[in-house]
Amino acid sequence: MRKIEVCLTPELIHQYDLEGKIAVAVDIFRATSCMVSGIANGVADIYPVATVDECFELGKEGMIMAGERGGIKVDGFDIGNSPFDYMSDEVKGKSVVVSTTNGTRTILASLNADEVLIGAFLNIGVLAEYLKNAQKDVVIHCAGWKGTVNLEDTLFAGALINLLIDQMEISGDSALIAHQLYLANQDKLLEIARQSAHAQRLSGFGVAKDIEFCMTSNQYETIPVYVDGKLKSLN
Amino acid sequence: MRKIEVCLTPELIHQYDLEGKIAVAVDIFRATSCMVSGIANGVADIYPVATVDECFELGKEGMIMAGERGGIKVDGFDIGNSPFDYMSDEVKGKSVVVSTTNGTRTILASLNADEVLIGAFLNIGVLAEYLKNAQKDVVIHCAGWKGTVNLEDTLFAGALINLLIDQMEISGDSALIAHQLYLANQDKLLEIARQSAHAQRLSGFGVAKDIEFCMTSNQYETIPVYVDGKLKSLN
Repeated sequence: MRKIEVCLTPELIHQYDLEGKIAVAVDIFRATSCMVSGIANGVADIYPVATVDECFELGKEGMIMAGERGGIKVDGFDIGNSPFDYMSDEVKGKSVVVSTTNGTRTILASLNADEVLIGAFLNIGVLAEYLKNAQKDVVIHCAGWKGTVNLEDTLFAGALINLLIDQMEISGDSALIAHQLYLANQDKLLEIARQSAHAQRLSGFGVAKDIEFCMTSNQYETIPVYVDGKLKSLN
Repeated sequence: MRKIEVCLTPELIHQYDLEGKIAVAVDIFRATSCMVSGIANGVADIYPVATVDECFELGKEGMIMAGERGGIKVDGFDIGNSPFDYMSDEVKGKSVVVSTTNGTRTILASLNADEVLIGAFLNIGVLAEYLKNAQKDVVIHCAGWKGTVNLEDTLFAGALINLLIDQMEISGDSALIAHQLYLANQDKLLEIARQSAHAQRLSGFGVAKDIEFCMTSNQYETIPVYVDGKLKSLN
């Protein structure tokens, strides 16, 4: 049986052998939720980069500059880190370059995998269907918060595992913990996610609408995939 | 309200500020379960050391040499890493020097804390009582397995939090996840612990009896504390 693992934070990704596997990068609040929303709503492609400077560099070439540091839009950027920023006419058909505190780091730390896919509750159903038919092991790579483990990404990992439990075998205790966390909270995902440290940080920025949207399953049928330095739609 | 945090593996301990706090070092399978059993059964004191060489060094001075690498007793050591090894007449009244794959590393990585206590299901009740009356924040430091997060230590962290939930505030998502894991499994601790990667590794060594014993709550009223390089009874 194929295996599914969970890496709870990029600080532990060196413990995982990604070679030959599919990595699913996850940053529910809010980078990967933004990426799924953007690609689903007509953004041409998204370039995840590590630094603010790289954003400004590619911004000069005409790309939309997006992202945050510490949860707040970077001064001089075109858009921030809300999925709703990625749905406007301003970004339709455009290339976006993005740097965030946790999510972009996670994608860039996943590149040893055979395929790097972008996961969020927004596209969890179509992602699970794709993974069911793929012939590879899977590592769900949670972004966490500044290297620490977070609740919402772990919850997503558990939810994705639960959709794949008939096709794949849980491998390692992090995956077991994530699955248990999901099973215990599947009827109150939004409620438990609101207790997370990140949701409480974000609530200070007035983004309650973002939290609720990011916790909504199956809004989109798009799976962004990282190829040649950028994210585009796999399907 | 005082805070209680959880560090899921020593690889993440640099994210925690231990100063002024109480660290509870936990390695359920089996280092801290051994230490609690040993001190409760009359071992004089226990010296946790990082390397096998240090064990042999202190062994020459007459200490009982204890520990494992990869779950198996080190060649030439007097005893291994089973709590039952720590109950024999051979070790009563003696000093033990111990090195294990995960547990001793965790204790030695906790020394920035004001107090370093040894936790296990075996002494969870008396430990919770002590922490209720202590006037400090608490960090539960899980040993995990070779740097990875494990189920049984996380489960213990959640169980200890649950005993302190009226006196202390959960701080950080790792603590929230640990508590949720415990709440979802409190009626079947042994069953879920048997699914852990570590239990499955150990079952190959025929130590099912150890697993069951290590998952038993409140066998002992002893709290080992680390002072001047060694563990002795706090109470």
